[in-house]
Amino acid sequence: MASSSSKPMREQVEEYITALQERIVTAFEKLDPKAPSFKRDSWTRAQGGLGKSCVFQTAANDASANGYESALEKGGVNISVVHGKLPPTAIKQMKADHSSLPYDPDSNTTLPFFAAGLSIVIHPRNPNAPTSHSNYRYFEVSDPDDSNKVLAWWFGGGGDLTPYYLFEEDAVHFHKTLKAACDQHGQVLYPSFKKWCDEYFYLPHRQEARGIGGLFFDDLNHESHKRLPDSDSSPRPRTAEEIFAFIKSLGDAFVPSYLPILEKRVHMPYTPEQRRWQLVRRGRYVEFNLIYDRGTKFGLMTPGARVESILMTLPETVRWEYMCDMGGEGTEEGRLLEVLQKPREWV
Amino acid sequence: MASSSSKPMREQVEEYITALQERIVTAFEKLDPKAPSFKRDSWTRAQGGLGKSCVFQTAANDASANGYESALEKGGVNISVVHGKLPPTAIKQMKADHSSLPYDPDSNTTLPFFAAGLSIVIHPRNPNAPTSHSNYRYFEVSDPDDSNKVLAWWFGGGGDLTPYYLFEEDAVHFHKTLKAACDQHGQVLYPSFKKWCDEYFYLPHRQEARGIGGLFFDDLNHESHKRLPDSDSSPRPRTAEEIFAFIKSLGDAFVPSYLPILEKRVHMPYTPEQRRWQLVRRGRYVEFNLIYDRGTKFGLMTPGARVESILMTLPETVRWEYMCDMGGEGTEEGRLLEVLQKPREWV
Repeated sequence: MASSSSKPMREQVEEYITALQERIVTAFEKLDPKAPSFKRDSWTRAQGGLGKSCVFQTAANDASANGYESALEKGGVNISVVHGKLPPTAIKQMKADHSSLPYDPDSNTTLPFFAAGLSIVIHPRNPNAPTSHSNYRYFEVSDPDDSNKVLAWWFGGGGDLTPYYLFEEDAVHFHKTLKAACDQHGQVLYPSFKKWCDEYFYLPHRQEARGIGGLFFDDLNHESHKRLPDSDSSPRPRTAEEIFAFIKSLGDAFVPSYLPILEKRVHMPYTPEQRRWQLVRRGRYVEFNLIYDRGTKFGLMTPGARVESILMTLPETVRWEYMCDMGGEGTEEGRLLEVLQKPREWV
Repeated sequence: MASSSSKPMREQVEEYITALQERIVTAFEKLDPKAPSFKRDSWTRAQGGLGKSCVFQTAANDASANGYESALEKGGVNISVVHGKLPPTAIKQMKADHSSLPYDPDSNTTLPFFAAGLSIVIHPRNPNAPTSHSNYRYFEVSDPDDSNKVLAWWFGGGGDLTPYYLFEEDAVHFHKTLKAACDQHGQVLYPSFKKWCDEYFYLPHRQEARGIGGLFFDDLNHESHKRLPDSDSSPRPRTAEEIFAFIKSLGDAFVPSYLPILEKRVHMPYTPEQRRWQLVRRGRYVEFNLIYDRGTKFGLMTPGARVESILMTLPETVRWEYMCDMGGEGTEEGRLLEVLQKPREWV
């Protein structure tokens, strides 16, 4: 039997995210066995590729219609594995971040690409339980005459936590788990990608972070990286196999980073005011995803994109109030805002 | 007593929108006398200028807490009158649309600007009643050595209607009223600006219009206009006074274009399913405003902008469902979608 590393990376990634998707969905279903299962549906892309969506949502008009309040309100664990031809404009944009990509900008030819990713967004019902998001992706551009000859490749990903009420122990647990996953692959990864996350998940118009952060990274490959030191004294994964091992550590860390928090929070009592605060804060989540998130923007502008999968990230019920009076100093809501305005080191 | 036309246009506009704001708010308050009044609050801008917000919203946790369901769920009628210095980057961008603006792009100087506008967004509670939006604005750039010497000026504006259920007679009434207001000032205005509206309030990722349209226009001044014929056989307002008269006709038409529709719809019975559809469709409204609306984008990127006034346009309660099963062929919801996918001529 061939070792897994003899397989092309695209196959290895597809296998891994397919298995991880099922593991994660099963973990959520075990957390809340009385709730309906995730709805699994597969789709194919006319231009090449496929996806599998696993989405949780409950009956539309009354979540507690059967007298049971599910732990999750809305959630999606989706994979997509697509391929096709990259138009010259997209290649030129990519070349800005990947100078090693052999491409003559005047040639005006297209290049074959392959992209595989897993996206997770979970919006629990209880305002004491945080929303969680993770995404892991692999991208490849190959030779127009031989699609097995890879011209450029990189991994990207990350995960962050968006609480509605601050439980410091949850933030510490989340960051500790991600840091442990990173540290196996080099000490520079966690601090660099934690900082990048704080910068990325930020709403300038609100002057607030989206949540208490986590990890964010992109364009990770064998080349030198603008966010990582290049010295030999700071080892970090460089080969595709090494970076894939790092990605797997992070993917495997999703359940242990988040499920223990949900277990503690989803059965806590809460008031209508706390629910109101949650819905108002979810408005910020929507603002971030629709105004700033690069993946969402890029996805929505891609002809033939599957809009329902892209916007699956949005919470079910959301509220916008003019000059909302919650979040004042000395309140629990205000404690959250303080942390969003001044990102902290949690580990 | 001086005739109004001897006053600088900025003063005339400020006077008009200030009076119109009060007339509109009063009309809504008369429509629903049992509801709480609009909350009026004034603000000043550190960099220069002021605004007055008139916002309607009800108690947060239960709109019908006192056994009374207000006609509106959320609404704002806001004016702002601001002035300051335009940075070179903003001037260069403006020069693209206003070539007559005397400005040397290499000079790197700032120019004084003045901007006054009225914005109206009304989200009724009853799903049978449409959401309505209007905006009228005046912009001036003046000489850095003499702020009374106007170097460039233009008006912009429009209004559109976003129904959740289609009542053709409402769409016809709305468009007829706007057309009558336009036609007093030239026959070319309504068809040109109706078309512009259909193009502007469009969500490419959904392949849907936001609503049943109305009017949209910008950069209207004495110069030739890319959307209007330049021939003498198609007269249209050209001077600042003529264009202001057109703006006033439109502003005056807001109440007669919309209130009679509300009067007919806000007391109709509705089901929880209809309410659900309304909340899902409001998600599209949020998507448009946060992803595409130029005013919102520009506003949020302006340092020191009043975010609460800009995002006042967002509905109170909103819902996103994955693969919502409503809107099928042969349903009332599906009838609306047909019109959003193929804009109609209503007059």
